[in-house]
Amino acid sequence: MATRKLLTLSQADADPEVKAVFDDIRATRKSDFINNFWTALANDPPQLKRIWEQVKVIMVAESPLDPLTRELIYIAVSTANNCSYCIHSHTAAAKAKGMTDAQHNALLSVIGLASQTNALATAMQVPIDHEFEV
Amino acid sequence: MATRKLLTLSQADADPEVKAVFDDIRATRKSDFINNFWTALANDPPQLKRIWEQVKVIMVAESPLDPLTRELIYIAVSTANNCSYCIHSHTAAAKAKGMTDAQHNALLSVIGLASQTNALATAMQVPIDHEFEV
Amino acid sequence: MATRKLLTLSQADADPEVKAVFDDIRATRKSDFINNFWTALANDPPQLKRIWEQVKVIMVAESPLDPLTRELIYIAVSTANNCSYCIHSHTAAAKAKGMTDAQHNALLSVIGLASQTNALATAMQVPIDHEFEV
Amino acid sequence: MATRKLLTLSQADADPEVKAVFDDIRATRKSDFINNFWTALANDPPQLKRIWEQVKVIMVAESPLDPLTRELIYIAVSTANNCSYCIHSHTAAAKAKGMTDAQHNALLSVIGLASQTNALATAMQVPIDHEFEV
Amino acid sequence: MATRKLLTLSQADADPEVKAVFDDIRATRKSDFINNFWTALANDPPQLKRIWEQVKVIMVAESPLDPLTRELIYIAVSTANNCSYCIHSHTAAAKAKGMTDAQHNALLSVIGLASQTNALATAMQVPIDHEFEV
Amino acid sequence: MATRKLLTLSQADADPEVKAVFDDIRATRKSDFINNFWTALANDPPQLKRIWEQVKVIMVAESPLDPLTRELIYIAVSTANNCSYCIHSHTAAAKAKGMTDAQHNALLSVIGLASQTNALATAMQVPIDHEFEV
Repeated sequence: MATRKLLTLSQADADPEVKAVFDDIRATRKSDFINNFWTALANDPPQLKRIWEQVKVIMVAESPLDPLTRELIYIAVSTANNCSYCIHSHTAAAKAKGMTDAQHNALLSVIGLASQTNALATAMQVPIDHEFEV
Repeated sequence: MATRKLLTLSQADADPEVKAVFDDIRATRKSDFINNFWTALANDPPQLKRIWEQVKVIMVAESPLDPLTRELIYIAVSTANNCSYCIHSHTAAAKAKGMTDAQHNALLSVIGLASQTNALATAMQVPIDHEFEV
Repeated sequence: MATRKLLTLSQADADPEVKAVFDDIRATRKSDFINNFWTALANDPPQLKRIWEQVKVIMVAESPLDPLTRELIYIAVSTANNCSYCIHSHTAAAKAKGMTDAQHNALLSVIGLASQTNALATAMQVPIDHEFEV
Repeated sequence: MATRKLLTLSQADADPEVKAVFDDIRATRKSDFINNFWTALANDPPQLKRIWEQVKVIMVAESPLDPLTRELIYIAVSTANNCSYCIHSHTAAAKAKGMTDAQHNALLSVIGLASQTNALATAMQVPIDHEFEV
Repeated sequence: MATRKLLTLSQADADPEVKAVFDDIRATRKSDFINNFWTALANDPPQLKRIWEQVKVIMVAESPLDPLTRELIYIAVSTANNCSYCIHSHTAAAKAKGMTDAQHNALLSVIGLASQTNALATAMQVPIDHEFEV
Repeated sequence: MATRKLLTLSQADADPEVKAVFDDIRATRKSDFINNFWTALANDPPQLKRIWEQVKVIMVAESPLDPLTRELIYIAVSTANNCSYCIHSHTAAAKAKGMTDAQHNALLSVIGLASQTNALATAMQVPIDHEFEV
């Protein structure tokens, strides 16, 4: 159960600010599907617009990192932050962008290893080597 | 300050288990530099070996994800887990593997956006769409 | 599913230590409703009492921060800590104390932005300005 | 030490995109001081602009939550996310906006209590009461 | 719902690498029960083997910490990391190894107190005493 | 640098509420040393008293878990929560209570493994087995 009501699509269509964003999501993704994150966020239309504008610039537009790499990073952050919704939605997005099972395995291995060495470095409070200074 | 003493290189060389791992680190990385994480971990030689073996298999060996992509994922996890040491060491590693400033910018943008949407999805407790089921 | 059995209200009433706390919760909140957190915590009556005493002093008593502000802070911490139960219970509490939808939106915006800038400051390991010293 | 070089103010002034944001920060805050977060972020001028635009809308503009309340929420999130830089900068900001020592005490008490009950609810995996559904 | 399909036991038996690990899990635990973590991990047989080997060495083999103490530490980490699955599985494991209700209460009290004082030390950014240096 | 001034011992002695707690800390620990956590917390004498009372009951008093085990759990939580101060102070406390290097190694191994499997279970969103229900 959510702490915000999800807007129905007809409620969303009735608000021009929300409708404009939803139409842009549909056009950008070439799909009619609007996932729950956006119908929940639509309770605050200006915030909906701010978040979607960032998603477009950071995740959709040209970038020195290819779209799949960006999704893998998103999954990594979402896992470390333990966002169940985000792990599901970005795992689906990564698969839609071509993530193979072997790549998924490799991703999970890196996430697991990083989590383990993060904890060890933190528990030992390892001082930073001077060689790592910029 | 650390909670474990860092082994000096001469102490490390005096322990055959540690020396074998350190020699393998040097050979694998084609460098004499052993960073503090390993000299701290050397307080527990079998754990040192277990961690290094995983690093070799997951981060160094052939993989469906290229070496730089794996470093970007490592930085993402280390940032979300707030491991200062690991952020420094893996940012240095990513640069050594060719990460450009533009790629670094793109990485940070994705990490920042994911952190923001993770928090929003969590705060709203957005229910998972059926479309995301495997 | 829980890792501790929730005490039924009749079990709770049968234990004088638990009953005393539950009666105080009901009297303080002017409501018969005892939410699951307390029936779970009642497996350890002295801990139940310690936690409730703190809630009374910190969340209910007079304070230089008004009751709604304290609930907003509670939601912010619970979101960053990803406590699903706590996000639900304190969002409900904030609404009961008058949180409007517009305030809820503002709260979520701040939580989202802070999470984003937290991640960026951490990823860049920004050194603390001397101006911020106390 | 940082993982990104901090731009000097003369470097920042030489880039029109950065200069425009820095000038707006100075004008908005009525102060010449630009703290390190912004000189680090200036390595990516479009991201600098995106973040500052959000800060202006969410933290500076009119809102149903007063400026100090928003800073308290920011500190709460930054503490739970363990962002040392952000705790320092937003504690300074909260004091500049009038946070008293007594309010600081109250804030810390709520953060501490929430962290404790978050952990207890999570460890017991307390099921969400139907009463909390929206 | 999972982001990886759980292997059925007949699928697992058909893969010699997976079968070898599952047989060893059954023999080590003297039980036919294979919990979902392992059937999910079996999508990546070499990672399955790496994780199980570590579990055997760290959690099952002789150690200067008795088996129950190790489970309590596992629960503590899993709670702070908010891993719902892990809290359930290791609470069950701790009970199977003799954890009493009184010990469970004591564990939860320490986890709760540590979480509270962690947040307070972090929010106040308390400098480390020289007396704690190794 | 801290966000709260540390009380000097003479300032602390001048406040009867603080002095009473500090005297009790000294008497309980049979040592004159008051570490920075307490001199920082002394900015809020009632909170100082609440936290110390909990420490006495949960960490010092008789318990079904021995004092060293409780310190190990505290270190585990502090590591997962990334509280640098707390990792230092409780590692020192654990050593003072007899933690050997071998036990420290075992503790770190469990913390590292739990962090790794936590991340894997979360990334795969493994459903909880019915066998784990209480």
